Amino acid sequence: MCELLAMSANTPTDLCFSFTGLTRRGGDTGPHRDGWGVAFYEGKAVRAFHESGACASSRIAEVVQTHPIKSEVAICHIRQANVGSVCLANTHPFIRELWGQYWVFAHNGQLTGFSAEPGFYEPVGDTDSETLFCDMLNHLRAGGGRDLPLADMVQMLVRLSSSYAARGVFNLLLSNGDWLFTFCTTKMASITRRAPFGPARLKDADVTVDFEAETTPNDVVSVVVTEPLTTDEQWDVYQPGEWRLWQAGEVVMKGSVPVQTQLGT
Amino acid sequence: MCELLAMSANTPTDLCFSFTGLTRRGGDTGPHRDGWGVAFYEGKAVRAFHESGACASSRIAEVVQTHPIKSEVAICHIRQANVGSVCLANTHPFIRELWGQYWVFAHNGQLTGFSAEPGFYEPVGDTDSETLFCDMLNHLRAGGGRDLPLADMVQMLVRLSSSYAARGVFNLLLSNGDWLFTFCTTKMASITRRAPFGPARLKDADVTVDFEAETTPNDVVSVVVTEPLTTDEQWDVYQPGEWRLWQAGEVVMKGSVPVQTQLGT
Repeated sequence: MCELLAMSANTPTDLCFSFTGLTRRGGDTGPHRDGWGVAFYEGKAVRAFHESGACASSRIAEVVQTHPIKSEVAICHIRQANVGSVCLANTHPFIRELWGQYWVFAHNGQLTGFSAEPGFYEPVGDTDSETLFCDMLNHLRAGGGRDLPLADMVQMLVRLSSSYAARGVFNLLLSNGDWLFTFCTTKMASITRRAPFGPARLKDADVTVDFEAETTPNDVVSVVVTEPLTTDEQWDVYQPGEWRLWQAGEVVMKGSVPVQTQLGT
Repeated sequence: MCELLAMSANTPTDLCFSFTGLTRRGGDTGPHRDGWGVAFYEGKAVRAFHESGACASSRIAEVVQTHPIKSEVAICHIRQANVGSVCLANTHPFIRELWGQYWVFAHNGQLTGFSAEPGFYEPVGDTDSETLFCDMLNHLRAGGGRDLPLADMVQMLVRLSSSYAARGVFNLLLSNGDWLFTFCTTKMASITRRAPFGPARLKDADVTVDFEAETTPNDVVSVVVTEPLTTDEQWDVYQPGEWRLWQAGEVVMKGSVPVQTQLGT
């Protein structure tokens, strides 16, 4: 399977600390050595890095760990392949333009018996994840989502996610740059850091950060992951079927739907 | 204006030498300090790097200069802004998926009085270049280009390029990973390197490469630029209105159309 990491913040914030923890699992403390990718929104644009090799030993991942890229929304994925070969085309996050915005998608899980209807967006690689992403976008476009109020758009996302979750494991990170939609069938947790900030220690590397020194009192920075990254903080674990919509570091909508958790991971 | 660089090769080849020369012009030997980007095809996938700052002083550009990324098609752009603010969303090359392939576009020039018809693909930023790219893709899709033989597809590209060139300067690099289409209204030149390989010296940096040591006798590697990068090689200069389609390092189709060169740069 794979691991996911996302950030939602109310001010451009770098992901160096969390990215350093996650990427240790890409061939060092974890087995996710079949590619990695990260996408940072910078205004409306997305700056992305992808590689088909192990991030724990990647020179480019090392640059991303140490070169602060400030973003309000970021999505990261490290891959342990199941469906689809190990190659760059199969490396998340996937990116498409819809309605003049870049949409970024990363997924953990696997569906059984899913096939997408033909549509405008088509996968380039051969993962079921990219096919799911294209299917979501095709449904949003066909459903006239462009001018929908956010609450209605989110209901479309929830309905689509529920339909995928009925076929297997569908832990999702999705953003259009304005918001971050997260959906959990088996594993997801979040943490929101705000004043008073304290220190935090990574689980996967001997690294501690003092967020007090890195932030201003108004900063709100949330991180969503499939497995918590720190040992000395309280992570808020999602329930199976739970979804949360994040904006500027805060949960602005949330809910839950029934999912078949017995499908396991 | 901007500068363009592309590579077409019959074997995965790195762009380190040419990229090192071009990026000196991004704030050092040239004024193109308003962003840079490069896209490398790796199989069907694209690995891209974009920044809104000057490449001559960029840590990420330095990594791309020194970390060999092997590709058969690559497209690079350094920007001196005219239309559109200096920001990541306005940084070439632009990328979209069409028919399950990633298409990559970079453009030098500026059009007068161009406005695109609404279509599926929409610009994210506010450059005329990205609008042109979306307009091209919308026309290709509407024109049923998917199943066209390559020669017919190229004729569509030539007709579209001619129509844009009627409105100004349109020096174009476009690829879908299978081929590289190049169109010149004012400045473009190419070089094809094949055995027997020799040395080459960059114009913009004190760097010499011995291609003999870097290649095999079967390699064919072509580079297309708006301004030649080396001082000791013979570059093949495009005429105004000339287009060339490259595959595996070779020109496989070419031709020319009338253009209004008096529009100048």
